[in-house]
Amino acid sequence: MNSFAKALKDAGVLASSHIIKSLDGTTGPMRDAMLYATTGGKGLRAFLVIESARLHGITPAIATPAAAGIEALHAYSLVHDDLPCMDDDDLRRGQPTVHRKWDEATAVLAGDALQTLAFEMTAQTECPDAARLHLVTTLAQAAGVRGMVGGQALDIAAETAKTPLTLDEITTLQAGKTGALIEWSATAGPIMAQADTSALGQYARDLGLAFQIADDILDVEGDAETVGKAVGKDADAGKATFVSLLGLDDAKARAHDLMTSACDVLSVYGNDAETLRQAAKFVVTRKS
Amino acid sequence: MNSFAKALKDAGVLASSHIIKSLDGTTGPMRDAMLYATTGGKGLRAFLVIESARLHGITPAIATPAAAGIEALHAYSLVHDDLPCMDDDDLRRGQPTVHRKWDEATAVLAGDALQTLAFEMTAQTECPDAARLHLVTTLAQAAGVRGMVGGQALDIAAETAKTPLTLDEITTLQAGKTGALIEWSATAGPIMAQADTSALGQYARDLGLAFQIADDILDVEGDAETVGKAVGKDADAGKATFVSLLGLDDAKARAHDLMTSACDVLSVYGNDAETLRQAAKFVVTRKS
Repeated sequence: MNSFAKALKDAGVLASSHIIKSLDGTTGPMRDAMLYATTGGKGLRAFLVIESARLHGITPAIATPAAAGIEALHAYSLVHDDLPCMDDDDLRRGQPTVHRKWDEATAVLAGDALQTLAFEMTAQTECPDAARLHLVTTLAQAAGVRGMVGGQALDIAAETAKTPLTLDEITTLQAGKTGALIEWSATAGPIMAQADTSALGQYARDLGLAFQIADDILDVEGDAETVGKAVGKDADAGKATFVSLLGLDDAKARAHDLMTSACDVLSVYGNDAETLRQAAKFVVTRKS
Repeated sequence: MNSFAKALKDAGVLASSHIIKSLDGTTGPMRDAMLYATTGGKGLRAFLVIESARLHGITPAIATPAAAGIEALHAYSLVHDDLPCMDDDDLRRGQPTVHRKWDEATAVLAGDALQTLAFEMTAQTECPDAARLHLVTTLAQAAGVRGMVGGQALDIAAETAKTPLTLDEITTLQAGKTGALIEWSATAGPIMAQADTSALGQYARDLGLAFQIADDILDVEGDAETVGKAVGKDADAGKATFVSLLGLDDAKARAHDLMTSACDVLSVYGNDAETLRQAAKFVVTRKS
């Protein structure tokens, strides 16, 4: 296991444990569904929080509430995205989606409560009050109409549009839908340390776009069992993707270029950033 | 118009204007649905924020972001509560619900974005950083599994339960579902001022319970046109309410007692709290 694989695993465990602790004393299907939805993910966003914090001299223990916060926020977006009125998915991470395992009302409410918990946990990160407020405000901006939900709204609009999206439009959509939370995660460390976020911000924008291109490639080349969710859906729906717009070879080349660029921008951190460079390589070579 | 009616109207306008300003530069159905969902409400929660702030020497202008925050959070909860998989309501405040005017996907996403916006706006309230963090953390607690969503989960569980709820259970349910946000609103002022929240906390708990009892009375005695939403639904569904458990006369007496108690606890504020006393009277005499 390389240092990235170990760091990813550790970050996921730290985030999950903190979410479980935060739900101490609650019972019932709502709690069960919230924990279920935050289990079994890659933990990439938690890893980015903890690793960017480490680069700025902040321990994993201090960074954990923010790492748990972004994983809870990401999980809420997946639970709602899977709903019948949205993407209507039965499978997520190889398991039944929340509305299939429980019901739609539980999925709506558990998603809602995960978003709330995300802000509660993030606001409790132990760093100067001004930095904590900055974490909360930037998280809200990344998650809202100008960020993730804005991207999801463009995605829905694209489904009923008469013409498929252009490369520019799909890049804007992705920057909101998946890019904004990835950027928040990778800049959470310098935000906690009240340091410059620009290098990690650029790293995250390259990483986020590479991540989405790799996702589109997996939708074409992957098999459902390995990927853990339905594949081929975008092509079947005639939806514009990076692969349909660039072609498979150019999409792969573009993902590779972004990975190289993401690694290069970390030079200000020298060898300390090696694990983040491994993360960029993982993102474009992953099979699920 | 008495001072309460004017203050309620003013608070609603301040909150709405701030929400509109916060969405500056966004376009499309998502923005339209978010504004639609935050329009036409009573503005009781915004009023409680602004009035409790005024009692602690904080101007309406300073308190407005928090007032807009709680109205956005309340609006999100209504949009999701009205969904087909939840209460399945077609009418809210005398107008089509969001999923009827647009569609379910827009209602899910607009509700999600309103919750996000609520935290973003609240975190920008101009008061000491520690007070701002306290506003955000207590808002998350009031909205989450131990507060509003917890109450909604109990409500859903009650629908499939074999026996109707007891008075204790329905009081717990209400304290979460509607009480927690009302209490947050009425204590937001002393939180901003870093002052004692106990008197306004007790006032709000009485007010919140009186509000819910009055709601149950309106469901029996009101007509849909005046109330602005379907009535008689609870009785038709055989659902336990304060009216079904106490009887109509005792429910009215209980609401009246709570109103008196809410007014009494404000004695520490003397005549300055007259508008909040009028609010308590309004809550138990309202027709919608």
